[in-house]
Amino acid sequence: MPEEIAVRVIGKVENRVKEPLGQEAFSGEISVITVYPEYAAGLYRIEENEYLDILFHFHLAGGFSLHTKVFSGEEKGVFASRSPHRPSGIGLTTVRLEKRVGNRLLVRGLDAVDGTPVLDIKPSVSHFTDEEKAIISGREGDAMKR
Amino acid sequence: MPEEIAVRVIGKVENRVKEPLGQEAFSGEISVITVYPEYAAGLYRIEENEYLDILFHFHLAGGFSLHTKVFSGEEKGVFASRSPHRPSGIGLTTVRLEKRVGNRLLVRGLDAVDGTPVLDIKPSVSHFTDEEKAIISGREGDAMKR
Repeated sequence: MPEEIAVRVIGKVENRVKEPLGQEAFSGEISVITVYPEYAAGLYRIEENEYLDILFHFHLAGGFSLHTKVFSGEEKGVFASRSPHRPSGIGLTTVRLEKRVGNRLLVRGLDAVDGTPVLDIKPSVSHFTDEEKAIISGREGDAMKR
Repeated sequence: MPEEIAVRVIGKVENRVKEPLGQEAFSGEISVITVYPEYAAGLYRIEENEYLDILFHFHLAGGFSLHTKVFSGEEKGVFASRSPHRPSGIGLTTVRLEKRVGNRLLVRGLDAVDGTPVLDIKPSVSHFTDEEKAIISGREGDAMKR
């Protein structure tokens, strides 16, 4: 079992946010993710997705702590929080894909500062059950039939 | 901008699945995530979460390809898919936390084989809007007031 693995950087974030803020502050913020040319072919048909999971590196975090104070002031373990000061150094945010222009993605709601290294992009899969999705989409009857 | 970053391994997966399968095959599968003792303090109050996002390393993937055939047979870019053969080598699954026993988490729905290195654990946050959550929970009126 290796103690560390090496992860490729596939692109970077550009936006107006120059220092870390709370997640709320980013909710409407538009960011551009530029995917490096050598990985751009991996974006084929990404525009078919409304939501994307973005994995990125908390490059300004400067180390980790196993306990953290969350927004409410309560203390929690780092794995029970979304603190940037985590052993992995990896952040994860689900964003809305607004537009793709070549190797650039315009996304809404990415809580990462300008210049953040991007590690991965995946189509987002909700943890809601089929039944819950059916309620949202007005297909309650379908879900009940199962 | 570094081309790679180093990510710590915080634990490993134990289950009955010895080789990669489709995600569907894992949906009811119970796995145990053992967090290494040096990171166990990071689990404080994790049992307050029903759903967790697990980041793990596709340690059997053996490299990446930028185009991939998805389950339906269609071709997509790797970032428009959840293929294990990705530049980052990182997998992400939302699981249900069934039980915590010390530094061991019993989780349901983790699509990772026995022995998979775990990179991070985060409380899961849905991409649904407050309004959609209100519809699910029957609080439609609340959402409409905003």
